[in-house]
Amino acid sequence: MEVYLERAQRIVARINDLAGISEDPKGITRTFGTAAFVEGRDKVADWIKEAGLETRIDSIGNVRGKLSCSQPNAKTFVIASHIDTVVNAGKWDGPLGVIMGLDLVEQLIQTEAELPFNIELIAFSDEEGVRFHTTYLGSKVVTGSFDKHLLGKKDASGIMLKEAIATMGCNISDLQKDAIEADTWLGYFEIHIEQGPVLYERNIPAAVVTSIAGQRRIEITFEGMAGHAGTVPMDRRNDALCCAAGFVLQTEKYAIENKERIVATVGKLNIVNAASNVIPGEVVCSLDVRSADETDLNQACGHLQNLCNKISEARNIKTRWKLIQQTAPVSCDKDLVNLLSHSIAQENLETISLVSGAGHDAVPVSVIAPVAMLFVRCFKGISHNPLEDVELKDIEATVKISDNFIQNLIKKYNQ
Amino acid sequence: MEVYLERAQRIVARINDLAGISEDPKGITRTFGTAAFVEGRDKVADWIKEAGLETRIDSIGNVRGKLSCSQPNAKTFVIASHIDTVVNAGKWDGPLGVIMGLDLVEQLIQTEAELPFNIELIAFSDEEGVRFHTTYLGSKVVTGSFDKHLLGKKDASGIMLKEAIATMGCNISDLQKDAIEADTWLGYFEIHIEQGPVLYERNIPAAVVTSIAGQRRIEITFEGMAGHAGTVPMDRRNDALCCAAGFVLQTEKYAIENKERIVATVGKLNIVNAASNVIPGEVVCSLDVRSADETDLNQACGHLQNLCNKISEARNIKTRWKLIQQTAPVSCDKDLVNLLSHSIAQENLETISLVSGAGHDAVPVSVIAPVAMLFVRCFKGISHNPLEDVELKDIEATVKISDNFIQNLIKKYNQ
Repeated sequence: MEVYLERAQRIVARINDLAGISEDPKGITRTFGTAAFVEGRDKVADWIKEAGLETRIDSIGNVRGKLSCSQPNAKTFVIASHIDTVVNAGKWDGPLGVIMGLDLVEQLIQTEAELPFNIELIAFSDEEGVRFHTTYLGSKVVTGSFDKHLLGKKDASGIMLKEAIATMGCNISDLQKDAIEADTWLGYFEIHIEQGPVLYERNIPAAVVTSIAGQRRIEITFEGMAGHAGTVPMDRRNDALCCAAGFVLQTEKYAIENKERIVATVGKLNIVNAASNVIPGEVVCSLDVRSADETDLNQACGHLQNLCNKISEARNIKTRWKLIQQTAPVSCDKDLVNLLSHSIAQENLETISLVSGAGHDAVPVSVIAPVAMLFVRCFKGISHNPLEDVELKDIEATVKISDNFIQNLIKKYNQ
Repeated sequence: MEVYLERAQRIVARINDLAGISEDPKGITRTFGTAAFVEGRDKVADWIKEAGLETRIDSIGNVRGKLSCSQPNAKTFVIASHIDTVVNAGKWDGPLGVIMGLDLVEQLIQTEAELPFNIELIAFSDEEGVRFHTTYLGSKVVTGSFDKHLLGKKDASGIMLKEAIATMGCNISDLQKDAIEADTWLGYFEIHIEQGPVLYERNIPAAVVTSIAGQRRIEITFEGMAGHAGTVPMDRRNDALCCAAGFVLQTEKYAIENKERIVATVGKLNIVNAASNVIPGEVVCSLDVRSADETDLNQACGHLQNLCNKISEARNIKTRWKLIQQTAPVSCDKDLVNLLSHSIAQENLETISLVSGAGHDAVPVSVIAPVAMLFVRCFKGISHNPLEDVELKDIEATVKISDNFIQNLIKKYNQ
């Protein structure tokens, strides 16, 4: 079994190698199209090329390595994750899936596995969307759903997306050509850290994802009346912050009561013209609600909006409720989920299933192909943080699981 | 009685005249030492000079007009308020007291009243402290409590206080000379808008102030654990905002229960590294507590700190409680308060007494002289806002009350 440990060690070495490339010397930051990003991307491309895959950088900066099967008109199974990061990131979110995918394909090449389908290993160039406030630029090109209107979008320094693409040496006129045709997809597989504490707390190395939560992002404005903190008596106030605080607590209470179905978070809260000696007159806050089930999501948002209205009316506060963004829940493919569960069970590991609260490239892919995701335990569920960590023994277990998975998939396809 | 209406109309005309001078064309802003401030100050100085007072600009930019009595070694009674403003101010906060004081002194001159004490009418140059984040620069010079260390303090553009003073043509070497000797003060009288809704709601033109609330300003930090809004289950969270929200509501509840004794306000609340998809890991907020009674103030702050600790411990959140500023409550002089109450009653008006929740120049003056304040009703209690307003009939009533007051004071002093 020494071989699995060695493969895990090599995966960690590559993760560390890639983490050494950063925009800022004290942390890990590789946002789309920057010099650090390009350096990291080229390193990954070299590894993929060395492994023997037909490798290229596509028009949005994705690294794409193809392992073709000998059969004509074979479908393509995509193994992927992303290599861009948030600012001051951890080293695992994204790279783990790309480098474990590479390890898996290397194994197939070394064992001269006979493939009934093509495999395309992809390192997506933009999943986090930090630089251009976008979502899934990389996978949207691969799925043919890239919105060309985004090309004029500017980053914080005024550089347009199309300029950033050109700077990387990519050609926007190829964006459409780089899509994998809808009818040639066999499926999609992504390994990713859980970014949550369930596996850590339950002491399980990895679990299959059954769905990716849908999301509503709402902006709520509470309008009361500003006043002097020293001169307006307590019973004459119309304090927008007290009203917002009531909403924050009621939202938390409702979400805890319905914790099996939703999560809800107030992540931003801004008092307009705040001063320590001024009663808050206006508060704007964000509300993020997620659920694996569209009905639950609608119900939760409806209930929270009612709560918001009730609390505000009781305080004579005006509110505005503005839907900013919404994505529908995504179900992973049942057959692939079963295959993956079986692959976990083959290692005598407990099989549990998880809902992904975070979005992933599997979301846009799910529109045209069956998707599957494997979550790997991470330290305390911490993510988007330098403290992000994954244990070697969990990588070893995941190597075995993904070996099982690809073998099961080949077997199934050959039946 | 036509004469009182005419005096009130002249007061309003002068208030409007002064309000026309501003740093910004669309509002009223005259912060200490700016060109608009100097223009407004010089206009006020001209009015005071025209009235026949011995007028000068002192070393901190206060306008000082003296009406001397014929008796040797007479004490001095100061009538004052301020002419600086907050940003985007109303026209009444400050100017009302200066211009009503001027009207009062003009009346004494016209009626050739025989004064048993000197009167000094002062338009303080800096009460709001907006430009240099200071308090009571003008009255501190007059009371001899000016802190010379402040001279090096810089405004937002890096200009030092001493430079701003020089720009106005004032001489900082005279700062000490401009104090009125402690043993020569007879007392201090200030007319000011209430800046609260009590008179408006009770339909009373004016009321005597019995005390000025003491204040504690506290900065509270709640430290939880940031996390992904989509991936951390509701029962695994350590949300600093939910904790702060609990504190905001408990503080409001306690202050309402004790509304006769204190007011308490959370005016600022900042989520560190806030993002709509991140569970708040750290929240910093301000707490402003005021009371006319030092014991009540201490008790309230102690209770709120305990509340804060309890709420935080229950949520496993770390807190820091940091006292930023404190001022003790000030009691107005009982004899002057009684005289002022009697002056109100003489007009067959209901006499109620108020606590000032806002600080005033009377605070530093109270250290060396007996102080009295008369609050005038303002529209809905709105202040520090262009909506600030005072009705003509209330100014008329206040003219009569202040006439009564000065006559009663002369009578009393002659006894």
